[in-house]
Amino acid sequence: MATLPERIKIVEVGPRDGLQNEAKPVPTDRKIAFIEALADAGLKQIEATSFVHPKTVPQLADAVEVAKALPRGDGVVYSALVPNEKGLDRAVESGIRRIALFTAASDTFARRNLRMSIDESVNAFRPVARRALQAGITVRGYVSTAFVCPYEGEIAKERVRDVTERLVELGCDEVAVSDTIGAAAPGDVLATVGFVAERVPRKKIALHFHDTYGTALANVCAGLQLGIETYDSSAGGLGGCPFAPGSTGNLATEDLVYMLERMGIRTGVKLEKVVKAAQDIAQCIGHELHSKQARRLGKANGKQP
Amino acid sequence: MATLPERIKIVEVGPRDGLQNEAKPVPTDRKIAFIEALADAGLKQIEATSFVHPKTVPQLADAVEVAKALPRGDGVVYSALVPNEKGLDRAVESGIRRIALFTAASDTFARRNLRMSIDESVNAFRPVARRALQAGITVRGYVSTAFVCPYEGEIAKERVRDVTERLVELGCDEVAVSDTIGAAAPGDVLATVGFVAERVPRKKIALHFHDTYGTALANVCAGLQLGIETYDSSAGGLGGCPFAPGSTGNLATEDLVYMLERMGIRTGVKLEKVVKAAQDIAQCIGHELHSKQARRLGKANGKQP
Repeated sequence: MATLPERIKIVEVGPRDGLQNEAKPVPTDRKIAFIEALADAGLKQIEATSFVHPKTVPQLADAVEVAKALPRGDGVVYSALVPNEKGLDRAVESGIRRIALFTAASDTFARRNLRMSIDESVNAFRPVARRALQAGITVRGYVSTAFVCPYEGEIAKERVRDVTERLVELGCDEVAVSDTIGAAAPGDVLATVGFVAERVPRKKIALHFHDTYGTALANVCAGLQLGIETYDSSAGGLGGCPFAPGSTGNLATEDLVYMLERMGIRTGVKLEKVVKAAQDIAQCIGHELHSKQARRLGKANGKQP
Repeated sequence: MATLPERIKIVEVGPRDGLQNEAKPVPTDRKIAFIEALADAGLKQIEATSFVHPKTVPQLADAVEVAKALPRGDGVVYSALVPNEKGLDRAVESGIRRIALFTAASDTFARRNLRMSIDESVNAFRPVARRALQAGITVRGYVSTAFVCPYEGEIAKERVRDVTERLVELGCDEVAVSDTIGAAAPGDVLATVGFVAERVPRKKIALHFHDTYGTALANVCAGLQLGIETYDSSAGGLGGCPFAPGSTGNLATEDLVYMLERMGIRTGVKLEKVVKAAQDIAQCIGHELHSKQARRLGKANGKQP
């Protein structure tokens, strides 16, 4: 690891990926306060909400209200998931300047989540990406189940590279290769992401890990070895795939920040503020936080967060 | 990571490091059952107890009884911590065939824990190691606070190498370079352990991580990159340094096993059996387990372990 990047871009996905599966409704003003607290902690890329159909993700039915309330001109890029043209209309109406498109490397996973095959989803994204880019809205992509699929098992690296390339061709400036169920180990990252990086510029690759098996930080290190500079994480380790029993959520932003800073990589993020933001939102959803920093700081304060 | 070792030696320290700080007394027969369950899970190196003074570690006051009850001839190496010649007498009386000596890379930590400086501790170990080796008992060493000390802060790699070399000179066939408070990141491991390995053969270096900050598995990967083949862990992630507020214990054996097996490295350990063993002993000490595997398997069974 002699050539570690000096700076890392962290994409905070807590307000979207962290909250979307939570059954207990979080009031809109608490979501906005959460996002503002994350920006105040120093996070510069925040995925704020999702314009999927409110029936699919009731928790984020207030996407337009949340997006309209986002701060402007604070140097933070706020993005939102957009599943189709209807979603893009709502995003544009809300003033969102960056959208994210979501497909998978597993056809079964795509069909169950998007009710489309991978091919169909990429075709459906074409006009969405074109219209967004014409409006000056930048586009990010997700390739979920990039390592292991809960239905299909092991995913071939060729499929991951193929889908990643197609999203880049659509105009995505960044594609998050995503370990949706958190089962990958560093060997998987080196093999699959290394293979993707043979064709896709490293600057366009982001890595998105869940920590179900505790390997997320080790996987980040494998990504660093490959020269990948962009990592998704969620404040408090909120989130978790409903298709992964026992999943304990996304890689926690504060744990990522600790490790990177300890390795001499500047993140610009104040981890205590991230923990505080996560604790506040966790009260709304009735969760204990599983991040190591939340446990450590909570115990240091004499309470279990 | 092209040259990963094919096999890894796991040293299970749960019965000693995992239990020693627990206030609630664990009955001797439950400890023996725990050790037997760990052996049944496929662990071949188990640190079973400690012959420190019973007043210092009341939880392990039954060391002689535990050691005498250990299975013989099952291919498992059972070891015990020995602080001095008196401890060695008790170990010999109990039929222990491998002992571990414990010092630190931080003088302050050594003085607070051993009531000796590092130099004094190494001198005190000399006759212990000599007598043990003469009796055909093998000797392991620990260098605690090898990266960060809760009193002194950052620890220079020169000091770690110096102490490690002195323990090897005493006759230790293996020295566990230990992140006692779990604060190290992979960069620390590469720097410090890489420096130690310039003088000490890799086969004689073990790595002992706590997972306070969630970096333990990432640190193992850094160790693998350096060619280190021996790693300490504790079933269920039991343990934790009383001097590290919020410490969530040792690296969990089952999480280590998951990652290594996923990377194609055979461990010979059945992780479900490790979790079951940890759950049984956790009932005695009234703890929830923090390992990812314990959470995952517990939720899959519809209960929180």
